[in-house]
Amino acid sequence: MADRGEYKRDQNYLTTRITADGRDGYPVEPGRYRLVIARACPWANRAAIVRRLMGLEDALSMGIAGPLHDERSWSFHLDPDGKDPVLGIERLQEAFFKRRPDYPRGITVPALVDIPSGAVVTNDFRQITLDLEQEWQALHRDGAPDLYPEKLRDEIDEVAELVFRDINNGVYKCGFATSQEAYDTAYDRLWERLDWLEERLQGRRYLVGDSLTEADVRLWPTLVRFDAVYHGHFKCNRQKLSEMPALWAYARDLFQTPGFGDTIDFDQIKTHYYGVHRNINPSGIVPKGPYPGDWLSPHGREDLGGRPFGDGTPPGPPPEGERVPPLT
Amino acid sequence: MADRGEYKRDQNYLTTRITADGRDGYPVEPGRYRLVIARACPWANRAAIVRRLMGLEDALSMGIAGPLHDERSWSFHLDPDGKDPVLGIERLQEAFFKRRPDYPRGITVPALVDIPSGAVVTNDFRQITLDLEQEWQALHRDGAPDLYPEKLRDEIDEVAELVFRDINNGVYKCGFATSQEAYDTAYDRLWERLDWLEERLQGRRYLVGDSLTEADVRLWPTLVRFDAVYHGHFKCNRQKLSEMPALWAYARDLFQTPGFGDTIDFDQIKTHYYGVHRNINPSGIVPKGPYPGDWLSPHGREDLGGRPFGDGTPPGPPPEGERVPPLT
Repeated sequence: MADRGEYKRDQNYLTTRITADGRDGYPVEPGRYRLVIARACPWANRAAIVRRLMGLEDALSMGIAGPLHDERSWSFHLDPDGKDPVLGIERLQEAFFKRRPDYPRGITVPALVDIPSGAVVTNDFRQITLDLEQEWQALHRDGAPDLYPEKLRDEIDEVAELVFRDINNGVYKCGFATSQEAYDTAYDRLWERLDWLEERLQGRRYLVGDSLTEADVRLWPTLVRFDAVYHGHFKCNRQKLSEMPALWAYARDLFQTPGFGDTIDFDQIKTHYYGVHRNINPSGIVPKGPYPGDWLSPHGREDLGGRPFGDGTPPGPPPEGERVPPLT
Repeated sequence: MADRGEYKRDQNYLTTRITADGRDGYPVEPGRYRLVIARACPWANRAAIVRRLMGLEDALSMGIAGPLHDERSWSFHLDPDGKDPVLGIERLQEAFFKRRPDYPRGITVPALVDIPSGAVVTNDFRQITLDLEQEWQALHRDGAPDLYPEKLRDEIDEVAELVFRDINNGVYKCGFATSQEAYDTAYDRLWERLDWLEERLQGRRYLVGDSLTEADVRLWPTLVRFDAVYHGHFKCNRQKLSEMPALWAYARDLFQTPGFGDTIDFDQIKTHYYGVHRNINPSGIVPKGPYPGDWLSPHGREDLGGRPFGDGTPPGPPPEGERVPPLT
């Protein structure tokens, strides 16, 4: 937290990369790495989505930290015996300490862990999805879409940067502000950006180009959590997402697209935010609302055209051990 | 608070009554009493509405405590020099202590204060509106409606009791629960009752009979605050009121009826709830949303018939010193 009550995200991560050529010492290999996520976390959600869209489930296994954690670490409290079955650890912190015994920063997801050594390779969420798309190509499924096409990269980067600043991180700036002034500023920027997106998405099915891209993957995890947690818990309450017609239809369109909605567990999302942030919700009580069933209602976005997967195809269903509960 | 985390409202009040015959020592007299409210408080809102509908503004003056208070007392922090201009006190507590130096319970609004002695006569909100309707008749304006007609009293009492238990007090039971179980129970009862009202109000313009009654006066102050504070701050978030078509139209109909909407100051409502309940909002930050302007949109409830004021007429505008700011 800075002086004026603004929330400042620590953006220092382990930036070692897993690449096709292994230049950082970690070459892409099937079965060697484990992607650790939490269903609650929007940054991890990006990686879970891209893994699904690329069809990397067999090559890159996934560990799922539970929604609750203490100040120090996410933990595997939903797993049998409270341990990740592959890494054999209770707390994700252990894998960070295997990489660096004095690791001083936040224990964050997503994290890519080198299974043989048990050490985290990277938790740099910004690079992880790009590398799953670009560096892991040899292991992609047939029909994996190109989420970061050369000719659209400048536009994707530009949109994603604004979305990160004002929306992905913007909701946290609203929720974790400690002064009215810092909150008011973050709120105004958030809604200005959402209005901009609302207008942009009225005439086009996806954020950039006419297919799903990395820009959509980055925006959507915030939108899908909006009414469940950001609207009330983070005071982002000018409207619900469901009151923004284009954004709401866009968010449902993606929810109903294989690889997106099948990564979402609203119970874990709500349990995490309301249960962990005792500084803004001292009781830890988790609201029963909102009713999430509307995510499956028709969105009508097909009328805007667009080819969701470009020259590719949709992924199949998630592996059995990774299915999320149905909406209730 | 009780053992199982349920919120229990202290329902002991000063029950002395101001009556036409003065049997408790306090006869109805023009200019003798002052009604102290706070714009934030839904219980006080009832009395402010009935005073307007009965046209008692000249006979019964009104003091307005500001939205912020400490654990001990509402105060007149919005008034010049921080003092109520008629009672000359900074804190409402002083008027309770004039009545009883060891007054041990909460300092609540509405309170009716005897101006000559400076002492609170009663803060029994349940009886205050009934007495303003029944006992103050000699001072009512021409055309004051009958909000508690003989033949409808049983039904009014029955509906009002359910509304009190599950809605008026129910939202507090949601917001101030200290266990998940107590919250879940209160939430279920609240929404069951709101669903019941939604159905009831689909076919009839007002809660009981075909005109405004005490039942509407008791329900509406909770509805008008619902999206502004109860939905987020108290976790009453299955839906917004604006997502319940009949209730939302009913609430707007009354908002646009003289005597109702002209008692509402959303800024003071939000400032109070978010600023005072630090146990559930430690930062004290007040959300900028929701956008309140929709309260003035057409409601279409005239099609259901009904005669808002029965054989009476609408009140004129509020006195100049009591005007609330326009919606923004």
